[in-house]
Amino acid sequence: MKVGIIGAGRIGKVHAKNISMFVPEMEIKTIADPFANDATREFAAQCHIPNVSTDPADILNDPEIEAVLICSSTDTHSHFIIEAAKAKKHIFCEKPIDYDLNKVHEAINAAKEAGVKLQIGFCRRFDHNHRAVYDMVQSGKVGKVNIIKVSSRDPEPPPVSYVKVSGGIFYDMMIHDFDMVRFLAGSEVTEVSAYGSVLVDPGIGEAGDVDTAVVTLKFENGAIGIIDNSRKAVYGYDQRVEVFGSEGCAQDENDIPSTAVLSTADGTTYGTAYKVMWDRYTGAFVSEMKAFADAVINDTETPVTGEDGLYPVLMAAAATKSLKEGRPVKISEVE
Amino acid sequence: MKVGIIGAGRIGKVHAKNISMFVPEMEIKTIADPFANDATREFAAQCHIPNVSTDPADILNDPEIEAVLICSSTDTHSHFIIEAAKAKKHIFCEKPIDYDLNKVHEAINAAKEAGVKLQIGFCRRFDHNHRAVYDMVQSGKVGKVNIIKVSSRDPEPPPVSYVKVSGGIFYDMMIHDFDMVRFLAGSEVTEVSAYGSVLVDPGIGEAGDVDTAVVTLKFENGAIGIIDNSRKAVYGYDQRVEVFGSEGCAQDENDIPSTAVLSTADGTTYGTAYKVMWDRYTGAFVSEMKAFADAVINDTETPVTGEDGLYPVLMAAAATKSLKEGRPVKISEVE
Amino acid sequence: MKVGIIGAGRIGKVHAKNISMFVPEMEIKTIADPFANDATREFAAQCHIPNVSTDPADILNDPEIEAVLICSSTDTHSHFIIEAAKAKKHIFCEKPIDYDLNKVHEAINAAKEAGVKLQIGFCRRFDHNHRAVYDMVQSGKVGKVNIIKVSSRDPEPPPVSYVKVSGGIFYDMMIHDFDMVRFLAGSEVTEVSAYGSVLVDPGIGEAGDVDTAVVTLKFENGAIGIIDNSRKAVYGYDQRVEVFGSEGCAQDENDIPSTAVLSTADGTTYGTAYKVMWDRYTGAFVSEMKAFADAVINDTETPVTGEDGLYPVLMAAAATKSLKEGRPVKISEVE
Amino acid sequence: MKVGIIGAGRIGKVHAKNISMFVPEMEIKTIADPFANDATREFAAQCHIPNVSTDPADILNDPEIEAVLICSSTDTHSHFIIEAAKAKKHIFCEKPIDYDLNKVHEAINAAKEAGVKLQIGFCRRFDHNHRAVYDMVQSGKVGKVNIIKVSSRDPEPPPVSYVKVSGGIFYDMMIHDFDMVRFLAGSEVTEVSAYGSVLVDPGIGEAGDVDTAVVTLKFENGAIGIIDNSRKAVYGYDQRVEVFGSEGCAQDENDIPSTAVLSTADGTTYGTAYKVMWDRYTGAFVSEMKAFADAVINDTETPVTGEDGLYPVLMAAAATKSLKEGRPVKISEVE
Repeated sequence: MKVGIIGAGRIGKVHAKNISMFVPEMEIKTIADPFANDATREFAAQCHIPNVSTDPADILNDPEIEAVLICSSTDTHSHFIIEAAKAKKHIFCEKPIDYDLNKVHEAINAAKEAGVKLQIGFCRRFDHNHRAVYDMVQSGKVGKVNIIKVSSRDPEPPPVSYVKVSGGIFYDMMIHDFDMVRFLAGSEVTEVSAYGSVLVDPGIGEAGDVDTAVVTLKFENGAIGIIDNSRKAVYGYDQRVEVFGSEGCAQDENDIPSTAVLSTADGTTYGTAYKVMWDRYTGAFVSEMKAFADAVINDTETPVTGEDGLYPVLMAAAATKSLKEGRPVKISEVE
Repeated sequence: MKVGIIGAGRIGKVHAKNISMFVPEMEIKTIADPFANDATREFAAQCHIPNVSTDPADILNDPEIEAVLICSSTDTHSHFIIEAAKAKKHIFCEKPIDYDLNKVHEAINAAKEAGVKLQIGFCRRFDHNHRAVYDMVQSGKVGKVNIIKVSSRDPEPPPVSYVKVSGGIFYDMMIHDFDMVRFLAGSEVTEVSAYGSVLVDPGIGEAGDVDTAVVTLKFENGAIGIIDNSRKAVYGYDQRVEVFGSEGCAQDENDIPSTAVLSTADGTTYGTAYKVMWDRYTGAFVSEMKAFADAVINDTETPVTGEDGLYPVLMAAAATKSLKEGRPVKISEVE
Repeated sequence: MKVGIIGAGRIGKVHAKNISMFVPEMEIKTIADPFANDATREFAAQCHIPNVSTDPADILNDPEIEAVLICSSTDTHSHFIIEAAKAKKHIFCEKPIDYDLNKVHEAINAAKEAGVKLQIGFCRRFDHNHRAVYDMVQSGKVGKVNIIKVSSRDPEPPPVSYVKVSGGIFYDMMIHDFDMVRFLAGSEVTEVSAYGSVLVDPGIGEAGDVDTAVVTLKFENGAIGIIDNSRKAVYGYDQRVEVFGSEGCAQDENDIPSTAVLSTADGTTYGTAYKVMWDRYTGAFVSEMKAFADAVINDTETPVTGEDGLYPVLMAAAATKSLKEGRPVKISEVE
Repeated sequence: MKVGIIGAGRIGKVHAKNISMFVPEMEIKTIADPFANDATREFAAQCHIPNVSTDPADILNDPEIEAVLICSSTDTHSHFIIEAAKAKKHIFCEKPIDYDLNKVHEAINAAKEAGVKLQIGFCRRFDHNHRAVYDMVQSGKVGKVNIIKVSSRDPEPPPVSYVKVSGGIFYDMMIHDFDMVRFLAGSEVTEVSAYGSVLVDPGIGEAGDVDTAVVTLKFENGAIGIIDNSRKAVYGYDQRVEVFGSEGCAQDENDIPSTAVLSTADGTTYGTAYKVMWDRYTGAFVSEMKAFADAVINDTETPVTGEDGLYPVLMAAAATKSLKEGRPVKISEVE
């Protein structure tokens, strides 16, 4: 199937490279970016992409192109979803759809009405470790799910300038974990309660955000969830999930680049964790793209639907409100 | 130093046996229990305890006895603390001092005014793994503490009849974890927010309690704490702590009886965790008693003071209120 | 740089695919195989290889081609090394060069005299875990090396028909480990002593080989090495190395596909190990090819030289003799 | 049952203390040591041992004493076994019985003829981890045993003065591992092949011994064993066993004092291993004594018989000969 990529920034390039290397089912015909230049063209050549354009319309209007990957800036996501839906193209869109719930709904509805596939880029669902935990839960080995815990810590905080436009830690960082707990729980969140502190960088506090946050969540089925986030873990990416249930507990250990250990007079030491997100989730990016190709080719539901894109935004809204008002907030309050 | 033990139930016997085997600094002169019988006398003989009595006064009035171990039922703790203080005897008292805050204060004050040592039986502070994490934090290797997590799950729920008189999961079970987070944090808790569910045994719900609970905590210094409890982990005791800070993360893995692993066509399997609390914390019970002996002999502060006995009760009161009212509760509200 | 691949069997295809996906420094111009057919041509197209030939001369005589990958059957390796050397092409050759020591020397000399690079395909040197252990040793963190241990067990024995022509377990399987101990030791082996048994498949014994083998090795510097091999580990590939020295011990744990663990009433279980060699050493194949490209492009020594191809063959010869004669055999006896 | 202890040195005291604390089935009536002094008497009092003597006859001639623990110097072991057998007392004797095979046989026969129990002090069989591996093997989960590996490394070499009288590394250190491989294998060793080097302390070489040794072993059933020893592991005691078989692989990880780990910018570090043997095998010493008491009380075979004391000496003799003569040596050559 022929696809087009809108947006040739960091994530657009990651997908382009991965498709050209690992996803023979897809052929990228065009990559479009308003700032496309010689470097973009060189990159495209390396990935065997024949066309580079500065106009997304070259993708949306191309009858040969079956599916569109929306990798542009967040504020344009819902617009391009709607346009692509109109053009009857299947859609892979980076997360989040939007921070404005009306726009999220509009985009989802557009895809639905057009009858096109819509997959949202929650790549961590495709991480080999998290997926193995998910599979254990799905297999029933954990029994009825009672407690879900997600730890998610980044190696370095983003610049304060970025924090100011990011929508805050719940929309920018914990949104991945909101998706993860829903994915693992098999039940919908009804209420969230947030605590947050500025412990990493005072500048983040001055920008009106927190850099350390803990959210507890109530699920419809009575299960309780816990997410903790920190913008800075000196030892690198720390991403772990745990699902505790009536028959057992499934969890993954943090992923590290090698299993080599050194025992000396000072103890036994494993190497450090990943410091770069693209290294940590290499395989996950490939797997999500293969899953999208599968859904389109076999005409099945995408593994991360538009609704899966909506709920984490609702949870982020509720968490933001909870932190501000110092009380638990029901999802129904922010819908 | 000569000591007396009030209460010859399960925990009284554990301390008696441990002292007779491992704590040569202490000599148990008398064990007193209103229900003392032939079996008690046989047990005492095994432990080289010369006197068995049905009257605690035989301990409190004995001028040779320097210290008293209060191992009687919870409702008598504060009474015996006050009596022992009057008798100028140093006091080791099982947790909790009482559920009634007035009685807790009265008991603590009595010990203070009498100038006797008071140590509360939060044995998990002396567990070799949790202690190693504590030492890492104290050494500064973790830096400034940002997030503290405690998982604490029991192998089996207690009978519903016990649940009814236990004071609830926060007073009966999570109280250990309330102590643990304070111990690890080096900062006082100012607010707690509780979620709870009945997921293990409906009878526990009918008794007005929950069997699965998650509490988040705010510390004075901005750190955030998380505790999760379940009354039933099919794989045995699961007790882990994690302290995440500006310079690193200290955590312990769950303690299991052996390091042996078996790799077969089905995967690589470690043995199950401990199923019996006394096995899980064997060394901790001994260490806490040695620490008490040290404090008395060297006239130093006990490692778990009366205030250390008070705060977890406050936290349990706040958590209970939070769960009931569906909102975060400040410690200052329940003092 | 433009390269040609001689041999389009399993390993030739792995290299072709890896180069096309991960090694942009290399461009495969031609793949040659006497049995090249439509399927070969289809495969070549997928890998963007323009030419498919049944005649290796189309590679050897092509002035545009700078380097040759010899992926043909073992008995043709030395012949093609000599031909490629004559044609002044750099050479990557799959292991082993040959079982006949004269041919090995002839091939190595041909490359030397022609002044072309020669790299032998001991891919495990490039495995991320073994490499991390190697780096620890090289960094001096282990101190002076005293003991080296290599465990290497395959999921399934090869068919007896293959065993008969394989040269035996020492040439066919342990040859990788002979290379590994040399790589890790930083010292040359002077003597080997072999024990072997038929414990997996009696048919292997009838074919004159063993399926379980343990070899101890003396190194020039006094260090002692141990290798154990089994043709069948029901739990999958088990490949571990350990280097014990005066300052510490570096080792790697077996590589498994995920870090997810499941704790149930039966214990805590990790997933099974890899069952397919290509999955186990995916990254290693890519890394060795990148290393070859680097050596050619930057005109540096290849990381696995012709001599590195020779010594494991000597060790296999000595081990074979040792097993047969029931005594330690010096390398000098088989040179 | 009443017992007497001959020898009040380090190991005699360990057993005395353990019995007094953990083995209520035994009552130590007398401890005898030619050098018994005030300190011995003080120690005995602490352990509730009523009699201290300088004459072992006070034990051997005491009709109340049912069993004797021989904890004297190695050269007196066989003598006291024979004397105790004559006196019809059950015998626990520290390893080794003797280095002189005639004396070993004489002692074993004396016990047999007298119809008394004889247990040899191979305490590692009772280590909780090694025992768990043994249990896995016995349960059949490993299937038919193919390869057995034992790593055994000490934190510090003994003084050269001790090495000179120790009988050499095979008799003094590896003898524990010879016992362990027999214990795990369920099959008898028929041949050993030894390599050794002086890599830790040149003084040990000057004393005619090696400090680093690797022995491979053939078992009757075709299984192959590997033992590696080093006199110095800077990271502390390193004691691991591995049993690989047709259905799986059982192994234990090295025992360390806590499960606490610290993750910092430098990696994730476990604490160091045990540095003191008595700490490493605390529980094992208790368990072996309980097992002896059980055998006497229930009149069952001891878990480590006289023959179990003999075979490791034969293996040590064969290993010594193998190292000296540079060839594999059959056990039948040294019997």
